[in-house]
Amino acid sequence: MAAQQMQNWKTKIHDIIYEADTPLGKLFDVLLLVFILLSILLVMLESVESIDRDYHEILYIGEWVVTILFTVEYILRIISVKKPLKYMLSTFGIIDFLSTIPLYLSFFFVGSQALLTLRALRLLRVFRILKLARYLGASQHLKDSLIASRIKIMVFLFAMLITSIIFGTIMYLVEGEANGFDNIPKSVYWCVVTLTTVGFGDIAPQTALGQFITTFIMILGYGIIAVPTGIVSAEYVRSYKNNEGEVPPELNHLDIDLNSLHCSNCNTSNHKDKAEFCYNCGEHLNP
Amino acid sequence: MAAQQMQNWKTKIHDIIYEADTPLGKLFDVLLLVFILLSILLVMLESVESIDRDYHEILYIGEWVVTILFTVEYILRIISVKKPLKYMLSTFGIIDFLSTIPLYLSFFFVGSQALLTLRALRLLRVFRILKLARYLGASQHLKDSLIASRIKIMVFLFAMLITSIIFGTIMYLVEGEANGFDNIPKSVYWCVVTLTTVGFGDIAPQTALGQFITTFIMILGYGIIAVPTGIVSAEYVRSYKNNEGEVPPELNHLDIDLNSLHCSNCNTSNHKDKAEFCYNCGEHLNP
Amino acid sequence: MAAQQMQNWKTKIHDIIYEADTPLGKLFDVLLLVFILLSILLVMLESVESIDRDYHEILYIGEWVVTILFTVEYILRIISVKKPLKYMLSTFGIIDFLSTIPLYLSFFFVGSQALLTLRALRLLRVFRILKLARYLGASQHLKDSLIASRIKIMVFLFAMLITSIIFGTIMYLVEGEANGFDNIPKSVYWCVVTLTTVGFGDIAPQTALGQFITTFIMILGYGIIAVPTGIVSAEYVRSYKNNEGEVPPELNHLDIDLNSLHCSNCNTSNHKDKAEFCYNCGEHLNP
Amino acid sequence: MAAQQMQNWKTKIHDIIYEADTPLGKLFDVLLLVFILLSILLVMLESVESIDRDYHEILYIGEWVVTILFTVEYILRIISVKKPLKYMLSTFGIIDFLSTIPLYLSFFFVGSQALLTLRALRLLRVFRILKLARYLGASQHLKDSLIASRIKIMVFLFAMLITSIIFGTIMYLVEGEANGFDNIPKSVYWCVVTLTTVGFGDIAPQTALGQFITTFIMILGYGIIAVPTGIVSAEYVRSYKNNEGEVPPELNHLDIDLNSLHCSNCNTSNHKDKAEFCYNCGEHLNP
Repeated sequence: MAAQQMQNWKTKIHDIIYEADTPLGKLFDVLLLVFILLSILLVMLESVESIDRDYHEILYIGEWVVTILFTVEYILRIISVKKPLKYMLSTFGIIDFLSTIPLYLSFFFVGSQALLTLRALRLLRVFRILKLARYLGASQHLKDSLIASRIKIMVFLFAMLITSIIFGTIMYLVEGEANGFDNIPKSVYWCVVTLTTVGFGDIAPQTALGQFITTFIMILGYGIIAVPTGIVSAEYVRSYKNNEGEVPPELNHLDIDLNSLHCSNCNTSNHKDKAEFCYNCGEHLNP
Repeated sequence: MAAQQMQNWKTKIHDIIYEADTPLGKLFDVLLLVFILLSILLVMLESVESIDRDYHEILYIGEWVVTILFTVEYILRIISVKKPLKYMLSTFGIIDFLSTIPLYLSFFFVGSQALLTLRALRLLRVFRILKLARYLGASQHLKDSLIASRIKIMVFLFAMLITSIIFGTIMYLVEGEANGFDNIPKSVYWCVVTLTTVGFGDIAPQTALGQFITTFIMILGYGIIAVPTGIVSAEYVRSYKNNEGEVPPELNHLDIDLNSLHCSNCNTSNHKDKAEFCYNCGEHLNP
Repeated sequence: MAAQQMQNWKTKIHDIIYEADTPLGKLFDVLLLVFILLSILLVMLESVESIDRDYHEILYIGEWVVTILFTVEYILRIISVKKPLKYMLSTFGIIDFLSTIPLYLSFFFVGSQALLTLRALRLLRVFRILKLARYLGASQHLKDSLIASRIKIMVFLFAMLITSIIFGTIMYLVEGEANGFDNIPKSVYWCVVTLTTVGFGDIAPQTALGQFITTFIMILGYGIIAVPTGIVSAEYVRSYKNNEGEVPPELNHLDIDLNSLHCSNCNTSNHKDKAEFCYNCGEHLNP
Repeated sequence: MAAQQMQNWKTKIHDIIYEADTPLGKLFDVLLLVFILLSILLVMLESVESIDRDYHEILYIGEWVVTILFTVEYILRIISVKKPLKYMLSTFGIIDFLSTIPLYLSFFFVGSQALLTLRALRLLRVFRILKLARYLGASQHLKDSLIASRIKIMVFLFAMLITSIIFGTIMYLVEGEANGFDNIPKSVYWCVVTLTTVGFGDIAPQTALGQFITTFIMILGYGIIAVPTGIVSAEYVRSYKNNEGEVPPELNHLDIDLNSLHCSNCNTSNHKDKAEFCYNCGEHLNP
């Protein structure tokens, strides 16, 4: 009986933490979001010297509060899932762990010279923000467009890299170390800065020939910016057209009848809307 | 009889000020536009030290002329509407008030040390320009495209913010305070400057590793610029297609049979073309 | 008979200069293009101090050669057209005149203090390049897209201007003269630099609040860059679609049966392919 | 018999080097790719002074290893093709030669003052990267879109150049040498920097008039960035539409039934899928 109660309790916790379909599950997600944003704000403020000097105590306490809450959440996630190891080794499991651990580590690595490293470890908690990715799932359509055009985008980026290396080398030969083009890698970096129209201006061509070549690079960059835009636009228009008429079979499973359930056994998501059992492990799904 | 005349007079004023369909109404709108632009020019010129020194008198008189005209307009707007309070608390009512008041306030807050604050208050009158928004309604189509893709744009901006925070933190760790990356918020600011391809160059990476990461950030920014463009383009193409064939029912009310009338009672606009009575308060509409 | 010969001779000259359909007419156009480019190169090189010092003689002679050739061309254009005044007051007539006159003017405005002004007048000859516009007509399609979306683009630019004025004023108040935001016009200029993602970096926000507002401006600029692109893309797709199926009647006259003939009387172009007489003045056309 | 064996051996080598359809051919291509990237990395690292000082020996040996491998590959390519001269004078033949020769040349041009030139010659080997272009063929679709819109893109670039020259001259007159606009070519360079929204900031307008004109240039640049994007997007959408329905006859030969075979006699590629003989020289093809 106690085991049964325990099991019920675990199922309840699982539903609150992993599902977003119940009121309690939604509340949990919103609270988690607030605490993630709060913890990022704390880390950011701490890095500002003038604020850290005046409010060090408050920031320190705030960080411990957030860390303890995240620890509790992490433990609850582990005990409420049937296969804890699978969760712990999943991407979000590792992120949850990494965003909890740094403050605890600061006890073990105490020492005058280790302080800077510690700061770095604590900053890792900013990656907690990656948890936010969980709430981004809304735009499946956008994702599909990007996936459909990923090969073209890669070819495009590769072409841009080749262009940068060739023009970077030419500019290194033309301008030389005297004008800030110290070596080829730095020259290539400058070329990417120019091609992407960022143009910091910390390095800029000084010779007439260098400026002429730069003009060419810039017009090239301006011309090819059309390429990724055109690709994504076209994919978008195409995918809209498909959605309007008939849905092509290969996209059939994407938007249509999936729900947000997570299997309580293996934590798989993206189940069919009317699915009774997990498609991965056969566990009964409780919606 | 006098009350009737008064009422007629008020209706006439209402038509001139709020409607753009009569010749007098159009003239009023154009004159208002000219005075708004003039007042903005005056505030701008006053902030230029060399011009303010030589033409202070003229600028001061010009500002008072504009302010008095705007005061008269504001009072007329209040007395010609049947529900003045509703107008005064509407967005444009507040903007009208805020763009009129600063010069009057300069009498009450006189004092040697309060002068700078006063200048700030007077500058608020630049917000008078927001009145121009009234004349922008032409592009309903553009607005529809933006509204239709607002969720996608928000997801996109949110993803960009996360990227900025993560790379900002990494760059803070890599470059440090010695190279201008003083704290994480400043680093995040720099990251947005880079991702959006603005690239001021007041802060720029100095270390080889920092420049390598920057290259990655820039290519990322160059790649994702395609996303909002693709979204809006596709929405545009889609909405055109809809307009060509049959108008979908949910867009039916948007472009087709609305006029520019404002109800003289509650000041609601966007009435149906053949509407006899205000859909909000039931007042009879006089076109 | 002499008058008849004269007339024939004038018609021949007219055909060579104004038409591009005969071999001689084509040769003339290409030669003109070469001389325009040469004259621009000469003006450019002359402005480079080191080159002007060494090759002043050659550049000076070159400029006179080009100027005399352009004068001859201008005179021939006037005498070969039946209504010279109409040509002289047309856009290209004025450009032709302005690109010929500066060097002659340098005789009349001699004097020690007038030298700088003269340089300026001579530089006007760079506008000779506008003649190149004649050879750009190829892309009627592109022009149509731009014309079709001109209202939307103007609304967009106007919205951008309002945004720049408001944020420029805010940044002037936040940053102030100490950080380079000397006055509102300069602040507005900086805001346009940022919104358009140019980002010179000669003026950059220094305060934390200023950098926060700048982040907002940049993301806004990044978001709205999608708008003009989306507009033009959609117009393009739409106009393609129209061309594929049936040509809409209002575009019927554009690409289909026009030739490059110029009327020898009134110099009107864009005649129908099979037109026997000028649609403007009734003059017989000789193809 | 020996001649026959020799022939067989040559055919085998040809298949490995020029074809990508057999396992050995694929392995060869991947290995070549790795060595090209390695050699570029070596040249880049060598240009970084601090790395070259410490690891000069290793970098030098590495370069020789790569050069010898490339020499062997070059020789094998020549002897395995039936018409070696045709290969040697083809684009890739010249690139292969240029990427192999520099290190050998360093023996002949030894001398104290020739060292810098030698460095330049060695850097030419970065062009080895152009070989990578061989592996880019995947995106035929992208290429088609660019080719279809090449005239429009050229017109656009030409219009941008004219704009740059005119505004560059105006800015030279307005700002002058005192503010960094030394001569017209430099002014035109600055104008391209601004129009393409790169904005280095090494040259920036200082006068009020100059900043006003710059505002205009930037908004122009921001507006016209839509043009190439719109062109490519529309081409893309159009080409997709064609592919969905029926393939237009003029594109029929492009994607559909071509294979990656190279003729062992004349080295022509792009043969029909079922072709038995080379369409160029009639040589029998062995798949």
